[in-house]
Amino acid sequence: MIGGYAGKILRVNLSRRKISTEVLSESWARKYIGGYGTAGKILYDEVPAWADAFDPENRLIFSTGPVSGTGVPTAGRHCVVTKSPLTGFFGDASAGGFWGAELKSSGYDSIVFNGRSSKPVLLWIDDVATELVDAQPYWGMDARTADRAIRKDLGEAGARVAVIGQAGENLVRFAGIPNDEANRIAARCGVGAVMGYMNLKAVAVKGERRVHIERPDLLRSVASEITRFVTSDPHVKSFTKAGTMLYFDLNWEIGDVPVCNLSRSDFGGPGDPGVQKLAYPDGYGKIIAGKRTCHVCPVSCRRVASYPASDKGEIEGPEYETVASFGPNCGIDSIRTIAEASDLCNIYGLDTISTGSTIAFAMECYENGLIDKADTGGVELTFGNADALIDTVHRIAHREGFGNILAEGSRRASRIIGNGAEYYAMQVKGLELAMHDPRAFQGGGLHFACTPTGGRHTEGLTLGHELVKTRPLLGIPVALDRFSTQGKARLVKIVEDWTAFISAAGWCLFTDDANAYPTEKSFLLAYEAVTGIAFTIEQALTIGERIFNLKKCFNIKHGATRNDDTLPKRLLIEKGKAGNIVKLDEMLGEYYQARGWNPNSGTPTPERLSCLGLD
Amino acid sequence: MIGGYAGKILRVNLSRRKISTEVLSESWARKYIGGYGTAGKILYDEVPAWADAFDPENRLIFSTGPVSGTGVPTAGRHCVVTKSPLTGFFGDASAGGFWGAELKSSGYDSIVFNGRSSKPVLLWIDDVATELVDAQPYWGMDARTADRAIRKDLGEAGARVAVIGQAGENLVRFAGIPNDEANRIAARCGVGAVMGYMNLKAVAVKGERRVHIERPDLLRSVASEITRFVTSDPHVKSFTKAGTMLYFDLNWEIGDVPVCNLSRSDFGGPGDPGVQKLAYPDGYGKIIAGKRTCHVCPVSCRRVASYPASDKGEIEGPEYETVASFGPNCGIDSIRTIAEASDLCNIYGLDTISTGSTIAFAMECYENGLIDKADTGGVELTFGNADALIDTVHRIAHREGFGNILAEGSRRASRIIGNGAEYYAMQVKGLELAMHDPRAFQGGGLHFACTPTGGRHTEGLTLGHELVKTRPLLGIPVALDRFSTQGKARLVKIVEDWTAFISAAGWCLFTDDANAYPTEKSFLLAYEAVTGIAFTIEQALTIGERIFNLKKCFNIKHGATRNDDTLPKRLLIEKGKAGNIVKLDEMLGEYYQARGWNPNSGTPTPERLSCLGLD
Repeated sequence: MIGGYAGKILRVNLSRRKISTEVLSESWARKYIGGYGTAGKILYDEVPAWADAFDPENRLIFSTGPVSGTGVPTAGRHCVVTKSPLTGFFGDASAGGFWGAELKSSGYDSIVFNGRSSKPVLLWIDDVATELVDAQPYWGMDARTADRAIRKDLGEAGARVAVIGQAGENLVRFAGIPNDEANRIAARCGVGAVMGYMNLKAVAVKGERRVHIERPDLLRSVASEITRFVTSDPHVKSFTKAGTMLYFDLNWEIGDVPVCNLSRSDFGGPGDPGVQKLAYPDGYGKIIAGKRTCHVCPVSCRRVASYPASDKGEIEGPEYETVASFGPNCGIDSIRTIAEASDLCNIYGLDTISTGSTIAFAMECYENGLIDKADTGGVELTFGNADALIDTVHRIAHREGFGNILAEGSRRASRIIGNGAEYYAMQVKGLELAMHDPRAFQGGGLHFACTPTGGRHTEGLTLGHELVKTRPLLGIPVALDRFSTQGKARLVKIVEDWTAFISAAGWCLFTDDANAYPTEKSFLLAYEAVTGIAFTIEQALTIGERIFNLKKCFNIKHGATRNDDTLPKRLLIEKGKAGNIVKLDEMLGEYYQARGWNPNSGTPTPERLSCLGLD
Repeated sequence: MIGGYAGKILRVNLSRRKISTEVLSESWARKYIGGYGTAGKILYDEVPAWADAFDPENRLIFSTGPVSGTGVPTAGRHCVVTKSPLTGFFGDASAGGFWGAELKSSGYDSIVFNGRSSKPVLLWIDDVATELVDAQPYWGMDARTADRAIRKDLGEAGARVAVIGQAGENLVRFAGIPNDEANRIAARCGVGAVMGYMNLKAVAVKGERRVHIERPDLLRSVASEITRFVTSDPHVKSFTKAGTMLYFDLNWEIGDVPVCNLSRSDFGGPGDPGVQKLAYPDGYGKIIAGKRTCHVCPVSCRRVASYPASDKGEIEGPEYETVASFGPNCGIDSIRTIAEASDLCNIYGLDTISTGSTIAFAMECYENGLIDKADTGGVELTFGNADALIDTVHRIAHREGFGNILAEGSRRASRIIGNGAEYYAMQVKGLELAMHDPRAFQGGGLHFACTPTGGRHTEGLTLGHELVKTRPLLGIPVALDRFSTQGKARLVKIVEDWTAFISAAGWCLFTDDANAYPTEKSFLLAYEAVTGIAFTIEQALTIGERIFNLKKCFNIKHGATRNDDTLPKRLLIEKGKAGNIVKLDEMLGEYYQARGWNPNSGTPTPERLSCLGLD
């Protein structure tokens, strides 16, 4: 097998409790790389159009790429792929930490689950045995408690555990799958709800194997160069120091941070004092007690939070997306409330973006009288109400009272509420938008409308490229006019394709977003060191394009039409803080053309699919 | 409002626990009649393509037609409409008894449920109040026990209750909704599982209102004439005497009764002694103790079964479909075992056709070594094993062990089992075929392939018309050569359209199948008496065609393609008892053409939809 791959896929039929092993096809590895590429191919081939997300014929696939878990810096990710219960389309989520590297060390590139156990089980993988274990004792536990209990009972303190909390068990449609003591989470698209549906509480892994590397000398030299760059480049050093909150101020300035469900420009009174209470370093810095890292990552953007009033000691510090989602987007200016909501989501196993966005949606419905205290169980669900925020997170995880409605996500909740509430659901294809207001950069609007998985920021968001990208990427001029639609179709396509390649290979996206590697060629060199395969940037882009089209084809197979490639109406008709609307119509046809898709239907043409080897 | 209608629709949002009333649009009543016509229009309009069957955005609609619950004989039916968890397409089921008439008397034509309650509830409707009542005390009860307990607790012995058993609670994909002490059941398409998903245990109704009749004198005279006919016509009298088992012998002779999952021609040894133990009167007659009726039905085809070894006293006698499904199709020759399995299905709330067919599928898998005792929990699941049959029914209802796999229906179970098991799943679009082997009559094969809801016998099966229909129907010559494909496309279309009309109006299908009315014009005269609207047969057929196309359009919206219009491969390549295969290819294009659909894609053309007022 090619270097970087364990070369094996583990198959677990939960209905029959049968475990088997397959060889990972080398031609698939070359064609779809890994991560959501190879997993996407399995999903496309095996899940019929008639299968729902909550269906024994859905698949839940944990997957790594060839650079995952090797000595390549910043490549500690794993992803989870499934048909999403939020969107009904291709769903994936990705997480850092150490779980993915551990899986690779256990001798498997991926695990494919199908069926549904009649009782709660967990999968335990180590070098001795791979087995399904009764998980009834852990059912009902939060993810952190379960993680610790499972390792204790297995007698393997060093095992790594991916485990759902109560949200996944209760089929909250935006439940994720936490790992590493619930400090990292594969959050988006409801992957944790599919795990809950399958009665699969956890996947615990302990591995001792080392994966074969084709050119270890080259890998050492590339890794050293990258590490030197990370520890000396001023921008990367800032990112290491501040973490993802480094970008909060800048994003705020340009009108990118959503405020009160994207309905306002500021919160907390004149002069935005709310923002100052959150921004790094003055606000956010007050609760930060240190940093953490993922597998082989000299960047170490993870934070540790600690503050006097907390009874939890040191917890994982909230990321930018989480601060924005529970903060400005819900009109909240208390960083401690945000940190608390963040940790609750981690242990319940909830996606903080969808949770915050769905609560912000409900707050706007409440303020506009579409729902009242009779609905919320007496809670005054207004923007800025910190107690109501925390209370609602609990209710969602347990599907209690009004939480039972919000647990369906904002799209479904808006239709349950009716009376025009759909206008307030900030989602695309059912997935709540990441915390970037695309009215601040046109390419972002196009991307949000067209990403196969819904309103994602991790499939090729062009924020940096339309603003202040510190260097040209892939021959695209930097700092394109963010308010112009010109050239955005091509920009979005290229960034999406590049993102698909590096994600499938196993890199953390911040490697690219934060320019943590010296140049794009560093990715290819590291890839070559591991796999022995030398790609040009064009070749890598073609592979990314293939993977992107594969996800799109899954959606077409499962009923997607051009109507699904759109944005919440608000973004098309109401000006945002940046003074603009998204002019989607000006870009969409051009984008389809750039992708070689039918310009009317937005469907990949047979010719293009044939070019990409997807026919 | 037009006569025959209560004129109101009850809306119940289970997520918000809100109940409201809407006026039934008169133009809809004229266009879609009622039953699954008007309910289908609501389903089409309101359920988005992305909503699954188990989804708060699905709808569960109980619906009656204008002749339901009036003095029109043989019109005591109600239907339940939803997106089916078995097929992902249009789902409906229909039941006799008295519940539908009671609903009409309560002042509503239909009830539309959406959302999902966070706790088990039941809906209670009487002339005083309409309210959601805590149903936690009844959760876990079988349908008959729950029916009695609910009426007792409500203090309304005369109320009529539609209530799911454990199968619906456990989301068995072919759970139905029993009514009238679980002796009748809206069985097909998994409607009971949707009710279970919604946490709706029951709908209890007590009504005192009489619906307005446009021409009471005409109704009296039509009803008298029909009753006279029923009580004097020799054929109808035979049907009254034997019930649906009247047809068992004839169906057996022509090779229509499926044997051992449609894989054999006989069972129980040479000369089919198994059949003799089941046939009426010698076999079936031994357990029959009397008959029962539905609302205003002089036919009274329902049976009462009683036999010494039973500890249940008098139970509802199994119908033809049930006897065939658990009998020859599972290789079982014990009428008592069949009666016991039948009653278990009634109280658990299981569709006997899908249950028997799914067990027969599993038996064939077992006999061919695709599954073994490790799968079945030690049960020897061979054809003819009566104990295994009963045991498996229990396991399915409770999703215990192997029952957890079979509870998904044969299509999903076959894919979970893998290794070619799909060949043994006798289903179309996921719905198990009714107990008629279409290799015995080509038109039946075409119809099974094309019915929007899957393998149904109640949407226009042409069995009678290809065999021994005692009189011409709608200008179609009777006794067409059943082995020829000629003329079948037109025949199937007309029978489907006529069936859609009389079903939507509220008639029991046996009125037509058993020729219980003097002529087809009797239907139109009764319809006119109730509604004041005089239709020609052509007008009625156009309405039926509209309703049929509406169901088809729902499927297209939810992703159906021409590939869904097919049959289990066995029926296309393996000769049945009648010595034939189904020559589907010879008929399908002609059928699409007869329907005015695109002959390649099988999609209704805009022109035809416009003609039908569906644009």
